Amino acid sequence: MELEQPKRLTMSEIAREVGVSTTTVSKVLNQLPGVGAQTRARIQHVIEQHEYVQNHAARHLRKGQTGLIDLVLMRLEGGYDLGIMHGVQETLMESGHRLAVFATHENEVVERLWLRRLFDQSTDGVLLLLPYEHGEIANSLLQQKIPFVAIGDRNEPATNFPTIGSTIWLGGYTATEYLLSLGHRRIGIITGPLHLMTSRARLAGYREALERAGIPVDPALICEGTYLLGDGLKQTYTLLDLPEPPTAIFAGNDAQATGVYQALYQRNIRIPDDMSVIGFDDVTYSAQMAPPLTTIRQPLVEIGKMATNMLLRLIAGQTLESTNVELSTSIVIRQSCQSPRSKALST
Amino acid sequence: MELEQPKRLTMSEIAREVGVSTTTVSKVLNQLPGVGAQTRARIQHVIEQHEYVQNHAARHLRKGQTGLIDLVLMRLEGGYDLGIMHGVQETLMESGHRLAVFATHENEVVERLWLRRLFDQSTDGVLLLLPYEHGEIANSLLQQKIPFVAIGDRNEPATNFPTIGSTIWLGGYTATEYLLSLGHRRIGIITGPLHLMTSRARLAGYREALERAGIPVDPALICEGTYLLGDGLKQTYTLLDLPEPPTAIFAGNDAQATGVYQALYQRNIRIPDDMSVIGFDDVTYSAQMAPPLTTIRQPLVEIGKMATNMLLRLIAGQTLESTNVELSTSIVIRQSCQSPRSKALST
Repeated sequence: MELEQPKRLTMSEIAREVGVSTTTVSKVLNQLPGVGAQTRARIQHVIEQHEYVQNHAARHLRKGQTGLIDLVLMRLEGGYDLGIMHGVQETLMESGHRLAVFATHENEVVERLWLRRLFDQSTDGVLLLLPYEHGEIANSLLQQKIPFVAIGDRNEPATNFPTIGSTIWLGGYTATEYLLSLGHRRIGIITGPLHLMTSRARLAGYREALERAGIPVDPALICEGTYLLGDGLKQTYTLLDLPEPPTAIFAGNDAQATGVYQALYQRNIRIPDDMSVIGFDDVTYSAQMAPPLTTIRQPLVEIGKMATNMLLRLIAGQTLESTNVELSTSIVIRQSCQSPRSKALST
Repeated sequence: MELEQPKRLTMSEIAREVGVSTTTVSKVLNQLPGVGAQTRARIQHVIEQHEYVQNHAARHLRKGQTGLIDLVLMRLEGGYDLGIMHGVQETLMESGHRLAVFATHENEVVERLWLRRLFDQSTDGVLLLLPYEHGEIANSLLQQKIPFVAIGDRNEPATNFPTIGSTIWLGGYTATEYLLSLGHRRIGIITGPLHLMTSRARLAGYREALERAGIPVDPALICEGTYLLGDGLKQTYTLLDLPEPPTAIFAGNDAQATGVYQALYQRNIRIPDDMSVIGFDDVTYSAQMAPPLTTIRQPLVEIGKMATNMLLRLIAGQTLESTNVELSTSIVIRQSCQSPRSKALST
């Protein structure tokens, strides 16, 4: 655990020093059985003395790399971010990097602290998973020439750094079109903050689908939120209290959809019998909801994998064919939507 | 990003070299405004040339430390583990360590790979968050003299390494006693795998509460599961199909409780009107369920904090007053339990 450079031995040097085969050394290094306790102890003693560095670690060191990739995200919440992390870890398993994780909690001071620590302690590269503005971080990383990829939906149409996201507009269109295909004509939508491009993209997809179906957009059915459960709860009550309430609600993300479920539960309105609900993201708990949520899937694991592969190529000094990538969204049909029925028929 | 030791400058050395005050250097390092573009560029140039290492990073290096803490967990799922991670990160923010995260997915080969990488790349210390057997990892860490703390519920009554968990037996007792206090007499319980001590602890708490209330334990009401949603679904159907079904269900964790919710939704049984449900853990989504879940809270953030503080003390070479700590569970009353009512009264 010393950072002063110790004399590093190869496996065969250790084998020679102990007087065993490299296979035996390998077994001890890999925690495999089949080596006597005494031999194991002798090998471990030599390893401890010389701080054996295994090949890929040595490779990182030779290249002047740390073997570390840093992922920075807004908060550890178990939705969108976890899916991405799955993909990141899967890819790093092969590359031999460790993943350092940091949550900023939308606190600028904390963000700066993280950046400083990053520059101090060094990193091979950074995955930025911050949905809101983070021009300052991106600029700092650019200045410090630290390779990075921004994941998720950017707030700028074009950037001077690599980004990866998914086809949000198409997702908004698909969700709305699906509800229309079931026969819904009054569809409420709960959006994210409308100053964000990604919120506007969902809404634009919704409008497009309605317009193609020849249904006028009713502004009363559009409720702005902030991607939180509370929006779903509050805006559902607003929608239910309209003179002519919707028969379906399209939530901007699955967290909002949980709020929609709670409000409907409180009012004793059954899903999907009396109200259809569709979400956006397909996070870990979406399939666990009662009833399981139909939603627009962002390919989170794939986004995480691809972002990591892009980053590893940047670290290796390669150029990317495309620096702004969008993977395709798709609909996951579960049990929260069905055709609308007249209130008179409901139990 | 080179690991060869560069000449490191202090802030005042940088200030002298550029001909500015240390305050100005500090502003640039901390990404603060108030420095002209040209001065900023000059300072950054010097920093880049000399790879300025900020104090706490330098402190780690002087001590031969990496500035890295490794957290290993079973899978990234957004329940129990995320709460712990919150606490870990909050504590590390102060200590200046970065957190490397790794999920084993219960795969032994992957576990070994991680361990090897850990030994190769070095770490200051490890937080083990693996609910099942992991004697091999613990022993390897002991052998390699890497400081570590095991978090969560151990499967052995005593260990030769530091552990931190919560009062599971008491939690089982509290949940059952709460349902009894509401007037329930037939209470179903869905457990974890009964070869695990922590599953048996919940069940023992359940038995204790019933016995104290003078209610005989009915084996038909005890269903074994594996802490997954599917158990909740399947075992709820089993309980509902009993000649005399329970009026309340105690789920072994909140993931199982989501399965209970789904099964009840399918059978059109309203919570809490026609069935009370109580969970265990209080994970991020428990309050988001419809209706919000009453559950036994494990103090996850506090456990994460305390484990990290224990580890930091071990890293600093200090001894711990107590090496096996349990923090107190408590009940979080939300909206999923109420007094049982006769079926005749239900709507």
